[in-house]
Amino acid sequence: MAQPWVTRLFVPFGITAGASVDLGEAKAHRLRNVLRLGPGALVSAFNAVDGEWLCRISEIGRTRVSLVAERQLRAGEPEPNLWLVFAPIHRSRLDWMIEKATEFGVSALVPVVSARVQGPWLDAASTRKRLEAIAIAAAEQCERLSVPQIHPHSRIEEMLRRWESFRRLIVCDETGRGVPIAEALTDFAAETPAAILVGPEGGFADTELDALANLPFVTRVSLGPRVLRAETAALAALAAYQAIAGDWRRTRPR
Amino acid sequence: MAQPWVTRLFVPFGITAGASVDLGEAKAHRLRNVLRLGPGALVSAFNAVDGEWLCRISEIGRTRVSLVAERQLRAGEPEPNLWLVFAPIHRSRLDWMIEKATEFGVSALVPVVSARVQGPWLDAASTRKRLEAIAIAAAEQCERLSVPQIHPHSRIEEMLRRWESFRRLIVCDETGRGVPIAEALTDFAAETPAAILVGPEGGFADTELDALANLPFVTRVSLGPRVLRAETAALAALAAYQAIAGDWRRTRPR
Repeated sequence: MAQPWVTRLFVPFGITAGASVDLGEAKAHRLRNVLRLGPGALVSAFNAVDGEWLCRISEIGRTRVSLVAERQLRAGEPEPNLWLVFAPIHRSRLDWMIEKATEFGVSALVPVVSARVQGPWLDAASTRKRLEAIAIAAAEQCERLSVPQIHPHSRIEEMLRRWESFRRLIVCDETGRGVPIAEALTDFAAETPAAILVGPEGGFADTELDALANLPFVTRVSLGPRVLRAETAALAALAAYQAIAGDWRRTRPR
Repeated sequence: MAQPWVTRLFVPFGITAGASVDLGEAKAHRLRNVLRLGPGALVSAFNAVDGEWLCRISEIGRTRVSLVAERQLRAGEPEPNLWLVFAPIHRSRLDWMIEKATEFGVSALVPVVSARVQGPWLDAASTRKRLEAIAIAAAEQCERLSVPQIHPHSRIEEMLRRWESFRRLIVCDETGRGVPIAEALTDFAAETPAAILVGPEGGFADTELDALANLPFVTRVSLGPRVLRAETAALAALAAYQAIAGDWRRTRPR
């Protein structure tokens, strides 16, 4: 919950010692007008490949900023291989789910369309851009090095056809017929690549649940006696996964 | 995620066979103008003592509604004894936390003021009323029988002085010095009365953390390598508790 001591900026590539890093208008606005930083001020720039670097602002104008990378603060490090697969939900709940999933460490956000969903969806470039901005802001805030990748959406049948079977698919089954989640996760090897799947507000159709149940990589889990909203179920399952089988099992003193 | 087949209404007391239940203006507005229900329509009324009853609307006007309880759908049942103790956070994040904590089954919401918090807080009747309305709406939606009780706020020293030591206090320690949460929870007896404590956005002061560490009922836990916002930490810890030591360990087919 503590704020990092310098502003963290996600920069997708090209941060190395002495390199000049150029950023566009949105970051120029934020650094200059919101944070009131000028030439000489320190920020950090990060991505999963280059790690995190302390940088100094060399030039700042209305439409661009240049940083010079001075010193590496953190090397790249392994991050969770954990996806969140979700059907569309109401905008404010979706935004919140994206922020929290990023804080919880998901590596990919995978939208799917199932029977009880009106499609097409997430086609609008503006929606995608909004979700990317939320994920980047959350990654900057929570001290991750990576930002979750947002996949293009697909129909559920299509997604399952292309599924790589090494990745366990944990289906949040709101009918209560799944195994309690903690029990289901005890047979997962530590940090097995996994994905959490939550349905739309109306739930999955019975035919979809039956098709899922027959797949060898699927585990249907229950999340207790109350009826959880889609975004609540997603976060509940992600938290349980990270606590029991994921990277919350390790400690890292700050 | 499925909607119940009738609208559920939290009615704090007095639901028994044949009893007439009178509700006020807010519920009259919702039933009449939002849901377009008239005399003869069915709804359900519930609380933790009386259970849940199928009721028929006998009269409905602009300012009041009368229901007649016809048949008990569910008897009262044991619910989790799990508190969320939280310091004030930004309004929209607080509202989310209250909704999600209710879905996760908390029995009490306990606001505390710690060193890095500007007080007084939550004194305004309007704030309290807003949080109560959020908790009631979430309880109606998630098929709980109870609604979490909102305690008056107190300073953290005062709260700890009055603490009943049978209740385990799980402190989300953002310094990373706690035990990984799944490990910490393995020595909890099933459904031990517990409370999750999250600090304000600036975290607890070191003196507060030291004082907490010395109390026999306290367990300091860590929630992984990322820096979680206060409300994210609260929901993460509640989900882990419910999955590992709480009522998500049981199944209840619907």
